[in-house]
Amino acid sequence: MHSLRFTTESSSNGMIERGFTVGDVPGVLWSPLSGAEHAPLVLMGHGGGRHKKEPAMTGRARLLVNGLGFHAAAIDAPGHGDRPRTAQDEQDIAELRAAQAAREPEGPTVVRYNARLARLAVPEWRATLDALQEFPEIGADAPVGYTGLGLGTAIGVPLVAAEPRIRAAVFGLHWPDALVETAKRITVPVEFDLQWDDERIPREAGLALFDAFASKEKTLHANAGKHFDWPRFEVDSAVRFLARHLGRAATAPA
Amino acid sequence: MHSLRFTTESSSNGMIERGFTVGDVPGVLWSPLSGAEHAPLVLMGHGGGRHKKEPAMTGRARLLVNGLGFHAAAIDAPGHGDRPRTAQDEQDIAELRAAQAAREPEGPTVVRYNARLARLAVPEWRATLDALQEFPEIGADAPVGYTGLGLGTAIGVPLVAAEPRIRAAVFGLHWPDALVETAKRITVPVEFDLQWDDERIPREAGLALFDAFASKEKTLHANAGKHFDWPRFEVDSAVRFLARHLGRAATAPA
Repeated sequence: MHSLRFTTESSSNGMIERGFTVGDVPGVLWSPLSGAEHAPLVLMGHGGGRHKKEPAMTGRARLLVNGLGFHAAAIDAPGHGDRPRTAQDEQDIAELRAAQAAREPEGPTVVRYNARLARLAVPEWRATLDALQEFPEIGADAPVGYTGLGLGTAIGVPLVAAEPRIRAAVFGLHWPDALVETAKRITVPVEFDLQWDDERIPREAGLALFDAFASKEKTLHANAGKHFDWPRFEVDSAVRFLARHLGRAATAPA
Repeated sequence: MHSLRFTTESSSNGMIERGFTVGDVPGVLWSPLSGAEHAPLVLMGHGGGRHKKEPAMTGRARLLVNGLGFHAAAIDAPGHGDRPRTAQDEQDIAELRAAQAAREPEGPTVVRYNARLARLAVPEWRATLDALQEFPEIGADAPVGYTGLGLGTAIGVPLVAAEPRIRAAVFGLHWPDALVETAKRITVPVEFDLQWDDERIPREAGLALFDAFASKEKTLHANAGKHFDWPRFEVDSAVRFLARHLGRAATAPA
């Protein structure tokens, strides 16, 4: 088992931000300046082509840490952020660019590429969770949630299906093809986002993935607009959902 | 034009509750104890077989008035609450009970019955809004929203389509049959609730009604569960949606 190695530490806006590695996977942990003992922990998966400290990650971290007093952690997906790309990564990305340039449906390429990344990333996330739970401020009894759209869903669905420590998850904006069978094994509460007029993911495909979750409590949030019109108020909604299920009362996120 | 006649007044939990009539339609207006001058006004449509002061109405009123400083108003639908039933009402209700007893689909009966009520209720609501805007604490420039599920949607969709003063609306839990064409004329922001496993309203029917709204901003909230499993946290969501669109920052509803 790899342990947590903190590499950097800084603080701003009432949060401590600690860079870490678990094995050769780089990550970041955001925590409240005080009072975070055994507070809930949210694992945050970034989107395709993005990284652990993109604005979408730091923005969610602020709401979770400052708004709720939670811990939030992100790691770079394979070939993303501070991690080297393999020849296979370069090939998959070239294939995706070619499909986009030819205005062909990118679904088949993204589905295959992201499924490959998920096979690598799920054990990385589980080792990261092991290591984070060794950190005394978090501990083994802190409730754990997951949030991630796009690539964060391609990785998150098999992660949550495999990981009984994760009690609630926010997913969305992905194709069902590689995920439906795994989603059928998920029973924890799920909030799922799709774009009603998504030009990349057909509406029926998004609905099929939502339908697959075996969760007794699951909520679909479908918003008018195309893929990248996904509205920012869904971040607040995701934070409230996680607050409700990870056992602390939500204060109002700003 | 009928004017507003206040019939009762009481206060509790930081709210003033005023009974009123507009013509022969009885209603109730909830307002903050202070500081409500020209505050936004939310019109609330009750469900089938319910009335203006059922717990679902008073609960929403508390969130809107105490949480946001808004006004909230409800009126009894024709044949509901304090209003007499006509022979036609009795006949429609008997037909509905018969369909339920025979375990036949109740959709056709409810759709026809509620469409008849809507033809009566839309002008009643518009006269009520005229009268409420004459009341100095509200005035003609207060932003106006609407919320109503079930019968509240059967009445609300034609009301919002006809009424340019209404700037945002929460709908859901109804069949599309009598409403789709009218929904296509609605362009204000809409939040729409349906139950993913609704045993009364087929999933495709609910999705078709959501799809019909011409609104650039519309959000579907579909929750796992049957018709009456509709989750109460959607009330908080509706209140936040109305807060966002009626122009005042939301405080956290309890």
